[in-house]
Amino acid sequence: MTDVVALVRQYGEDARAASRVLAAATNAQKNQALLRMAELLEAEQDNILAANDQDTAAAAANGLDAAMVDRLRISAKSIAQMAEGVRQVAALADPVGEMDDFKILPNGLKLGKMRAPLGVVGMIYESRPNVTIDAAVLCLKSGNACLLRGGSESFHSNQAIAKVIYQALRETGLPEACVRLFETTDRAAVGAMLALNEFIDVIIPRGGKGLVKRITEEARMPVIKHLDGVCHVFINRDADLDMAVSIAMNAKTSRYGTCNTMETLLVHQDIAATVLPRLQAAYATKEVELRGCERTQAVLNNIAAATEEDWFTEYLAPILSVRVVDGLDEAIAHINHYGSHHTDSIVTNDYADIQRFLREVDSASVMVNASTRFADGFEYGLGAEIGISTDKIHVRGPVGLEGLTNQKWIVLGSGQVRV
Amino acid sequence: MTDVVALVRQYGEDARAASRVLAAATNAQKNQALLRMAELLEAEQDNILAANDQDTAAAAANGLDAAMVDRLRISAKSIAQMAEGVRQVAALADPVGEMDDFKILPNGLKLGKMRAPLGVVGMIYESRPNVTIDAAVLCLKSGNACLLRGGSESFHSNQAIAKVIYQALRETGLPEACVRLFETTDRAAVGAMLALNEFIDVIIPRGGKGLVKRITEEARMPVIKHLDGVCHVFINRDADLDMAVSIAMNAKTSRYGTCNTMETLLVHQDIAATVLPRLQAAYATKEVELRGCERTQAVLNNIAAATEEDWFTEYLAPILSVRVVDGLDEAIAHINHYGSHHTDSIVTNDYADIQRFLREVDSASVMVNASTRFADGFEYGLGAEIGISTDKIHVRGPVGLEGLTNQKWIVLGSGQVRV
Repeated sequence: MTDVVALVRQYGEDARAASRVLAAATNAQKNQALLRMAELLEAEQDNILAANDQDTAAAAANGLDAAMVDRLRISAKSIAQMAEGVRQVAALADPVGEMDDFKILPNGLKLGKMRAPLGVVGMIYESRPNVTIDAAVLCLKSGNACLLRGGSESFHSNQAIAKVIYQALRETGLPEACVRLFETTDRAAVGAMLALNEFIDVIIPRGGKGLVKRITEEARMPVIKHLDGVCHVFINRDADLDMAVSIAMNAKTSRYGTCNTMETLLVHQDIAATVLPRLQAAYATKEVELRGCERTQAVLNNIAAATEEDWFTEYLAPILSVRVVDGLDEAIAHINHYGSHHTDSIVTNDYADIQRFLREVDSASVMVNASTRFADGFEYGLGAEIGISTDKIHVRGPVGLEGLTNQKWIVLGSGQVRV
Repeated sequence: MTDVVALVRQYGEDARAASRVLAAATNAQKNQALLRMAELLEAEQDNILAANDQDTAAAAANGLDAAMVDRLRISAKSIAQMAEGVRQVAALADPVGEMDDFKILPNGLKLGKMRAPLGVVGMIYESRPNVTIDAAVLCLKSGNACLLRGGSESFHSNQAIAKVIYQALRETGLPEACVRLFETTDRAAVGAMLALNEFIDVIIPRGGKGLVKRITEEARMPVIKHLDGVCHVFINRDADLDMAVSIAMNAKTSRYGTCNTMETLLVHQDIAATVLPRLQAAYATKEVELRGCERTQAVLNNIAAATEEDWFTEYLAPILSVRVVDGLDEAIAHINHYGSHHTDSIVTNDYADIQRFLREVDSASVMVNASTRFADGFEYGLGAEIGISTDKIHVRGPVGLEGLTNQKWIVLGSGQVRV
């Protein structure tokens, strides 16, 4: 126990020191390291795949279900995608040092803002080994050192990927401690990490709701977190019904397990009788189970009642809650009360209703005539995402380079003193 | 105890409901309420002063020291200043609904950002009653409901000010629950508040370091906090010495008790022998005690040695630590290690050194040829400040309207679905 605490403390101290060097690194230096990582990922493909085989074999032997083992698995194709992702991040503009919002104060001081790295980012994540490279690369480009605590199931895969990262840092003259993957699977390391507010500026957890809750409660530093994705589509009275059905189908059925999948469909009462039967038929082809409010049940036969619990639920499965609402007010109130402030969309052509929906829906992404499934870092052009935030402060929605930075005030004077 | 928990929970629930109305309120509605508050502050001046007399009399009777009693005291002049401050905030641009950063994605989706209120802001503060009106006004203008827990010493003053706020809200048709000053002085109310992450989106503590630490540790929601202000001025080798002395004097002696006061002076070794004696003579006229490193002591007679502890200390008193450094590298390293990431200034005419200082000093405000004393919301033109953040995420330095908002993603489509 004490050894782990000391080890994690050392990781933190080294990361803090490395972060100072990295904050001053040029875009060219950082890109050189990134492009070398991409090359090495490809060159070391066989080692990474062999390490991954160890992990998947152990997972299967430990009785993990097939879906879990599948999430662990890396292929030659996924390594190629990782390398491509690294190159995409290298190609992004460097946010660090960007200056903005300059104005001249009455006393002649020039006041503006400069974008700066957060410092040291701590990531705690489960399974998927690609998080190791995604997180390292986004942190590096945004000038942050990072401490990575991966899941024990992907231990060997993560280490093989980290080896490539360390080598690229060494070869390009950046401190190896810019990225540190934990070499211990001791669970006490997580607790030690969460107490290290002296050296870690922010924690980003990626994993199940239980993990995220525990981390948020225990962390002594700020947490950028994703809790759940209870996303809505509201079909307004005037919606183009073909568009509405297309969006509602895509938002629910294109993938069931993603956080930007719709979990509750809201339908304006004026068109419920028209659109609900069409939707029921369409969902039936995908074997999506519908659970409805009383007014939905009055239109559709043979569907179960949605309980109060259902409205709060992220199914991550072919199940959909359906509610008929009086109009825009009730739709917005439902979303703000039952939703998770993730992503919500309205289908309509009504200008005034759009203005109100955009302004009053309190979610990270608010959409008009588009599928909720678009809410992610790649689709938004961030190059990649280190997570999706459902928090209200610092950053909302997909977290890319900008979310890993802050803005400091810059004051340029010529000798001014305060009277 | 249970009653207090239930009461605070009710405050939270009401504030959440009010925040939905306020998020949709127009700038005109909010300004109407603000301007009415300013009028009522002036009209109710006698009541507020009488309530304040109660507080100051009680404080004196309870043996609070004169300085504390003085901080509690309100005068006709300070009420006039409060009213003026309210009018200034009303005159600021409404940040809510501001749209920015729009781009068109390859699939035709228009992606941008819209500024939105955080929701419900919880303030916990000590003594000074003007925080009640400042916080209420900034939250209202930025579309946030707020829960205010003031200090027991200023209970009557705060209630008298709150009465004016409630009346203005009622008269202008905004929910009274947009602002709620706690009516209990039960200390259990603070604990109850900090557990209410369901209804409170962010906590802003204002008070001593002990209070802030306790709140940060206990709060279940994010905290925007100000810990301490260990600010530095670095006099570079090429500094204009008149300017350097003028800034160093102002930064230390214009006020001792403020967080943007310089606590440590760093001097380039090449000019130590020239500038330190001048500074010593100048500080002597203000009876500022100097504590120096060995190299400082070698130049100046009769000054105490600065201990490791001194470099970390916010004196808030006429005491100054002085250190001679080899150059820019050591100055930056000292500031980042011993400082509190608040405000630091360099005096120099060297372009390359300025670029490095601005980029590498990890502080909320980084200045060139200006006194650290400028770091506050009024000086920065924010109209007012609800606090000064020494955090690394969300907002750094003076927190005005923008710091009380976030940006959500806006996606405008024409029927797009994800393939």
